[in-house]
Amino acid sequence: MNTLIKTIEVLGIIAFALTGFYKARKLRMDLIGVYALGMVTALGGGSLRDIILNRHPLFWVQHYEYAILLLALGIVASLVSQELFEKKKLVVFVLALDALGLGSFSASGASLANQLGCHPFISALLGVTTGVFGGVIRDVVCNEIPYVFQRTELYATCSFVGAWSYLLIFRAYGNDVLAAVSCIAITFILRMFALQYKIKLPI
Amino acid sequence: MNTLIKTIEVLGIIAFALTGFYKARKLRMDLIGVYALGMVTALGGGSLRDIILNRHPLFWVQHYEYAILLLALGIVASLVSQELFEKKKLVVFVLALDALGLGSFSASGASLANQLGCHPFISALLGVTTGVFGGVIRDVVCNEIPYVFQRTELYATCSFVGAWSYLLIFRAYGNDVLAAVSCIAITFILRMFALQYKIKLPI
Amino acid sequence: MNTLIKTIEVLGIIAFALTGFYKARKLRMDLIGVYALGMVTALGGGSLRDIILNRHPLFWVQHYEYAILLLALGIVASLVSQELFEKKKLVVFVLALDALGLGSFSASGASLANQLGCHPFISALLGVTTGVFGGVIRDVVCNEIPYVFQRTELYATCSFVGAWSYLLIFRAYGNDVLAAVSCIAITFILRMFALQYKIKLPI
Repeated sequence: MNTLIKTIEVLGIIAFALTGFYKARKLRMDLIGVYALGMVTALGGGSLRDIILNRHPLFWVQHYEYAILLLALGIVASLVSQELFEKKKLVVFVLALDALGLGSFSASGASLANQLGCHPFISALLGVTTGVFGGVIRDVVCNEIPYVFQRTELYATCSFVGAWSYLLIFRAYGNDVLAAVSCIAITFILRMFALQYKIKLPI
Repeated sequence: MNTLIKTIEVLGIIAFALTGFYKARKLRMDLIGVYALGMVTALGGGSLRDIILNRHPLFWVQHYEYAILLLALGIVASLVSQELFEKKKLVVFVLALDALGLGSFSASGASLANQLGCHPFISALLGVTTGVFGGVIRDVVCNEIPYVFQRTELYATCSFVGAWSYLLIFRAYGNDVLAAVSCIAITFILRMFALQYKIKLPI
Repeated sequence: MNTLIKTIEVLGIIAFALTGFYKARKLRMDLIGVYALGMVTALGGGSLRDIILNRHPLFWVQHYEYAILLLALGIVASLVSQELFEKKKLVVFVLALDALGLGSFSASGASLANQLGCHPFISALLGVTTGVFGGVIRDVVCNEIPYVFQRTELYATCSFVGAWSYLLIFRAYGNDVLAAVSCIAITFILRMFALQYKIKLPI
């Protein structure tokens, strides 16, 4: 089960990085830009979580293999044609992986904040922060209004609901793995539904 | 007196948040965007202060009631009409509260840096950072050149003068509350004057 | 030799600040904007390095003379005519100083990360982060796609190569000063070559 969560986290990091690579290619950046944008998207939310919660070393400083993996992927992403990136099937696939990543980051943020004794509302917020801020930084660097703040299909909301489900299930059963799996599942399903049926917030 | 300072801080946080809500509504963001922009504006400067000075937990992680209060206000702000936000009287009122907030954040930044033994110039800078960076982050996220860096009515300058008044009065009398009140008063009066008479920096 | 490295660092900080002053003047900012943009460009990369590596107090909080020096320079930069800033000779001179600064920041980032036991790849990344992120923040604040991510003359690449040269020479000879000097020299020469011959990354 722990291996499952770890696998989902890695898939999520890759999906986040791909969205960064995609934007960078679209803006005609070189390998440095592609790699940098992939890195901030994939690792930005977790870094902010670690800095806010004073956890050192930051997760990617400790797990240096993430940075190396993303460099390898970034080189590949710089070599393939831009059209490949925009293939409908790939987009759907990346959106699904991205939803998994959102769920796993939300769980990790809520879990770590909760362990450090934060109030549940703050823990839920840190789940959302971990899940969405990589993308926020990506969009800000690209000079765009962050996607996640716009009136579009539910994204941060899925993360928020998922983070609360983590906190409630952890409180009820005291089982971190069960809570994380349910957070990932709920975030993922809610996000897929929102995309499929174009569900937006009423306000 | 301490209650007075606390009250002013809360009023300032609310005013800062309102400027974030306003921008978000103008950009037609949904509740997530409204809340997020209110949060970064209201809590961004203090967070940066705490991270620079290595103070943990961050003030809003500890005082979780701020985040909950802002969510409640953000929901209200998402429901009212955009016109209400632009009512002349409300704008003047928010500008006044914002000036109070600027003063109270400047005092808190200068005070905490001073307590930790920073050089007075650095303490004054941290007062300004605490006072203005929430707004800087808000503007950057909204894809605008930060208001506070533009050739417009004195803003950061009021904070800088206020922070120095805190440091000088604290050095002279050793009284934190007196120093904070004078910082708030000086920042507020200077900012109101600058707005009234359109005072700008000569260079 | 240590004095040489320190001198180069100060020259680099000044060069970084000048690029911030220049952008601020171009955007018609007032003294606050000029100073703020100079500060984030000159001190942003080192601050990020210190925050990521949990080094407190931040280098500019401790060495308060940097902030005061930059204020003095910022006032001068606000008073001179915009044309002076764009003089061909000055531009070339600032580009050369900037390359020295890039080298010295790369060395400091790689050195400090290495001392704290980071993996060499992470240490090299932190060298690059220290060298380039001040400029990234400057460009983001100015609402521009960061220069360093664009398909233009090698910049971050020089820093990356320089940081690796630091790490390899330090590993071989155990001499911090020798490693730093070689990092600065290699970064500088590579950057000058890239500018002269318009060398860009192939992908």
